[in-house]
Amino acid sequence: MQAYEKLKQLHQKLYNLQHLAALAEWDMQTMMPVKGAEARANALAELQAVLHQLKTAPHVAVLLEEALAVRDELDEVDRANLREMARLHALETQLPEDLLLRKTRVAALAQPLWVRCRADNDVATWLPMLQQLVELGREEGRVRAGTADLSPYDALLRANEPGMTVAKLDAIYADIKSWLPALYKEVLNNCKDVDASLVPLQTPIAEAQQVALGRQLMTEVWKYDWDAGRYDKAPHPFGGMVKEDVRMTYYWTPENYTRCMLATIHETGHAKYEQGCGPREMLGQPVCMARSGGIHETQSLLAERMIGKSAAFAEYVTPLLELHLGAQPGLTVENVRKLNQLVKPSYIRTLADELGNPLHVILRYEIERDLIDGRLEAADVPRVWNDKMKDYIGLETLGRDDIGCLQDIHWAGCGWACFPAYSIGAIGAAQLMATIRQQLGDDVVTQCIRTGHIDPILAKQKELIWDKGCLYETDELLTKATGEPLNARHLREHLERRYLRNEDC
Amino acid sequence: MQAYEKLKQLHQKLYNLQHLAALAEWDMQTMMPVKGAEARANALAELQAVLHQLKTAPHVAVLLEEALAVRDELDEVDRANLREMARLHALETQLPEDLLLRKTRVAALAQPLWVRCRADNDVATWLPMLQQLVELGREEGRVRAGTADLSPYDALLRANEPGMTVAKLDAIYADIKSWLPALYKEVLNNCKDVDASLVPLQTPIAEAQQVALGRQLMTEVWKYDWDAGRYDKAPHPFGGMVKEDVRMTYYWTPENYTRCMLATIHETGHAKYEQGCGPREMLGQPVCMARSGGIHETQSLLAERMIGKSAAFAEYVTPLLELHLGAQPGLTVENVRKLNQLVKPSYIRTLADELGNPLHVILRYEIERDLIDGRLEAADVPRVWNDKMKDYIGLETLGRDDIGCLQDIHWAGCGWACFPAYSIGAIGAAQLMATIRQQLGDDVVTQCIRTGHIDPILAKQKELIWDKGCLYETDELLTKATGEPLNARHLREHLERRYLRNEDC
Repeated sequence: MQAYEKLKQLHQKLYNLQHLAALAEWDMQTMMPVKGAEARANALAELQAVLHQLKTAPHVAVLLEEALAVRDELDEVDRANLREMARLHALETQLPEDLLLRKTRVAALAQPLWVRCRADNDVATWLPMLQQLVELGREEGRVRAGTADLSPYDALLRANEPGMTVAKLDAIYADIKSWLPALYKEVLNNCKDVDASLVPLQTPIAEAQQVALGRQLMTEVWKYDWDAGRYDKAPHPFGGMVKEDVRMTYYWTPENYTRCMLATIHETGHAKYEQGCGPREMLGQPVCMARSGGIHETQSLLAERMIGKSAAFAEYVTPLLELHLGAQPGLTVENVRKLNQLVKPSYIRTLADELGNPLHVILRYEIERDLIDGRLEAADVPRVWNDKMKDYIGLETLGRDDIGCLQDIHWAGCGWACFPAYSIGAIGAAQLMATIRQQLGDDVVTQCIRTGHIDPILAKQKELIWDKGCLYETDELLTKATGEPLNARHLREHLERRYLRNEDC
Repeated sequence: MQAYEKLKQLHQKLYNLQHLAALAEWDMQTMMPVKGAEARANALAELQAVLHQLKTAPHVAVLLEEALAVRDELDEVDRANLREMARLHALETQLPEDLLLRKTRVAALAQPLWVRCRADNDVATWLPMLQQLVELGREEGRVRAGTADLSPYDALLRANEPGMTVAKLDAIYADIKSWLPALYKEVLNNCKDVDASLVPLQTPIAEAQQVALGRQLMTEVWKYDWDAGRYDKAPHPFGGMVKEDVRMTYYWTPENYTRCMLATIHETGHAKYEQGCGPREMLGQPVCMARSGGIHETQSLLAERMIGKSAAFAEYVTPLLELHLGAQPGLTVENVRKLNQLVKPSYIRTLADELGNPLHVILRYEIERDLIDGRLEAADVPRVWNDKMKDYIGLETLGRDDIGCLQDIHWAGCGWACFPAYSIGAIGAAQLMATIRQQLGDDVVTQCIRTGHIDPILAKQKELIWDKGCLYETDELLTKATGEPLNARHLREHLERRYLRNEDC
C-alpha cells in the first residue's frame, strides 16, 4: 500500500499547513488590528491556493485510484481514512478554478454590502446581490451533482453534510412541522404565569463576572484542558482552531448572564469533541476529523441544551451564580431554572429558544432549497420569509428585513445548505442524551448534572461519538450509538418532557 | 522585463506566506498554550519547506539570470529590488538540504539542553554540544564562502549583516577598545556620588501601571499606530510580525520601571521602522525590507538611548511617572534622569548600561569569530570569556558560566555572527542622532524631547532611513544619511557628552 502511505503523508502535510489557516482565522476574530485585514486576507488566499494545488495535483488522483484498488488489504480505520480521502478529493476537484474564483470575488463584495444593508434595513439594495449568490449556488450545485440524479441543492447539501439528503430532511422536517408549532403555542400559553413570576437579576452584569463563571464551568464541569486552549473575547462566540490547541471565545451582554453562559457551554461542547476527536494515533488524517457540522452540533447542543438548560443544572449553577454575581433575590434554583429555560418567540434565530429554533432552521432550509432548485427567486424571499415566520412562529417581518431575511451571514458568504446542521444537532443531541440516560440510568444522569460531576456523561460522549471521528458515515455512527438514524421523536420527547410535563432532569 | 515581473510575483507570494509564519511565531511567544507547541512546530516546519521550495525552484535562477542581463532597463528602485532578490536567492540556495536539516536537528536538541545547563550552571555538559554547534557554523561558513577569499566567519557575517566584513569590524572594535574601557572606569569612578544620592522608588510597581506608561509613551511620543498593532506580555520583549500589523510585547519586573519602559521604547523604535519601511508602493518586495539587523538596531537604540535615556526625556517623563506611579520623593527630574542613566557593570549583556554593552558585544564577537575561524575550540570558551570580562568590564565569571558564557541563546540556536548588529546599532544611533541634531539644530532636538513632541525627529528618521528600505547597501545608506560610513567616533562623543561632561540633551 505504497500509494495509501503517500496519501497519508500528503494529508499530514495538509494538516500541518491548515494549522496556520486556522490560527490566522482565530487571530482575525480575536486579536488582529483593523489595518492588518488586507494583508491577512492576502496571506490566507495564498495559503488556500497552495493547499488547493496540493490537494488537486494530478498525481493525487492516481494515488487514490491505486489505493482504492487494494483497499481490502487495509484495516477498518485505514479503510475509513481512505474513504474520507476520496470524498474530500472529489469535493476539492469538482469545482473548476474559474467558479472558485467567481465565488471568492462575489463573496468579498457581498459581505460588506450585507453588513450595510442589514444595518440600514435596505433589502432592495441587497436583493440583486442575493440573486447573484443564488445563481452561483445553482451553478455550484449543478457542477457538484455532475451526472448523478441530484437536484443542485441536494448536491450542495451532501457536500456540506455527508450522508444527508433532501428526501431525508424533507421527511424529518415534515414530522417536526406536524407537532412543533402546536407544541410551541401550548408552551407559550402555559408560560404566561412563569413569566409573571420571574425575578430579574441585578444589571449590569460585568464582563469579569461572566468570564469567571464561564471559566469555572469549563474547568470544573467540562474538564476543558487549559494547557491546550484559551478563552478570549470575540464579536461572535466560537470554539475551534486546531485539535492540539482548541481555543474558545465569548461574547457578553451586560443585561443577562444566560447569553454568555449558554454560548460558552455550547462552545465547550464543540471544543470537547475537537479535543477528543477520532482515533488519536491517526491525528492529522481525515479519519480523525469531526464527522460533520451536524454531528458537531449534537455535541455542542448536548452540552448547552441537554445539560446547561436542565433543571438539574440550575441546582448546580445557582450557588456559582451567587459566588460570581453576589447574593440577590433572583438567585433561587427555581428562578434560575426559569431564566435558563426562558421561552419567548424571537425574530432572531441565534436568540431563539429551543422550541422556536428548529422552526427558524426549517424556514431557512425551505427557502434556500427552493432558491437553489429554481422554485424561488431572490425577489420572493422577503414575502416568503414573512409568510413562514407568521405561520411557524407567529411573528411578522414585512418591512423589517433586518430582523428577517437579512439577519444571517451564511448566504452572503455563498454558504448554502449550512442551516440543516443546526437541526440535525438539535435532534441528535436529544437522541444521544436519551441513549445516555438509558445506558447510565436516569437517576445517575440527573445526579451527575445536579452535582456538576458529568464525567460519566462525557465518557459516554467519548465512547459513542468522539472516539469514532470519521470512522463511520453519519447514519451508521448514529445507529451504532443510539440504535437508529436521526429521529425527531427524541427532540419531541425532550421538549414535551421539559416544557409540558415538567419532568426535566 | 517579463522575468523581473515574474520574480516580483514570486516575492509577493513569499511575502503573503511569510505573514503566516510571522503570526505563528508571535502567537508562540504570547498566546499559545503549552500543548500547542508540537503541532505549531510541525506547521512552521511545513511552511518553511514550502517557502524553501518556492525560493529555490530551478526556474527562479533562470529568471534571475534573465532579469539581471537587462537590469539597466530598470529604474533605481526596481534595480535595487532585483539586487536584493539575487542576494536573498544566493543565501537561500547556498546551503545544501542536508546541512539545513542537520542545523535544524542540532538546534532542536541544543536549545533545551542550553536552558537546562544555564539553570544548573553546568558548562561541562554544555561544551560538547557547543563544539557541535561550532563545527556546524564552520561548515556553513565554508559553504557560504564558496570560492571567495573569505574566512568562514566572514561569510556568516556577510550573510547576516550585508555589507559588513571582519576587516571593518576589527577596525571599529579596535577603535572602541582603545578608549571605552578607560572611559567606563572614569565614569564609574565619577558615579560613586551619583549612586549615593539616588532616591529609590516605591516597589513593587504593578504591571498595569507599567503597561499604562508604556502605552502612553507609544501613543503620545512615538505615534505608534494602534490600528496596525498590539501590545502584549511575552517572556522576552520583542516587536515585529508584519509591516501591516507590527505587534509589540513587554516584559516587566516589579522592582523598577526602567526595564519595561526602556525595552518598550526600544521595541517601539523597531516598530516605527517596520511600520514605515521602504518605498510603500513596493510593499511585499525585498526592496521594502529593513536594510539589516544592524540598521534595525540603529532605530531601536536611537529611540531607547538617544531619546529615552536623555536628560531632556527625564523632564518629559517625570510627570507621567507621577501620574502612573503616584507622587513620591524619588520622582524629581534629576532623580529620574539618574535612574534612567544608571551605570553599573553587569555580568548580563541585556542588563548592561550603554557603556558596558558594546564591550559585551565585542567580547562575544571576538570569541565567536575565533571559534568559527578555528583559532578557539568550545572548551576554551569559559576561560577566554572570563579573561575578556575581567579585561573589558572588570568582572570575573570563572565558575559562574550561567552568568558568563551560558547567558545568551544565540549560539544554542546555531545563530553565529548575530551579535555585531547590536554594536552597529549603538554606533549608528549616535551617528544618526548627531546628523539629526545638526540638521534640526541642537536646541530644537532638545526641545522636542523635553516636550515629548518628537515628530521632527521621527520625520528625519523616516527621510534618512525608513523610506529607503533596501534601496541602498548599508555603507551607502549611512553615507547618504550622515555623510560617512559607520564611525565609532559618534558613539564616543555621545557617551562622553552624557556621562563625562553632563552636556546631554
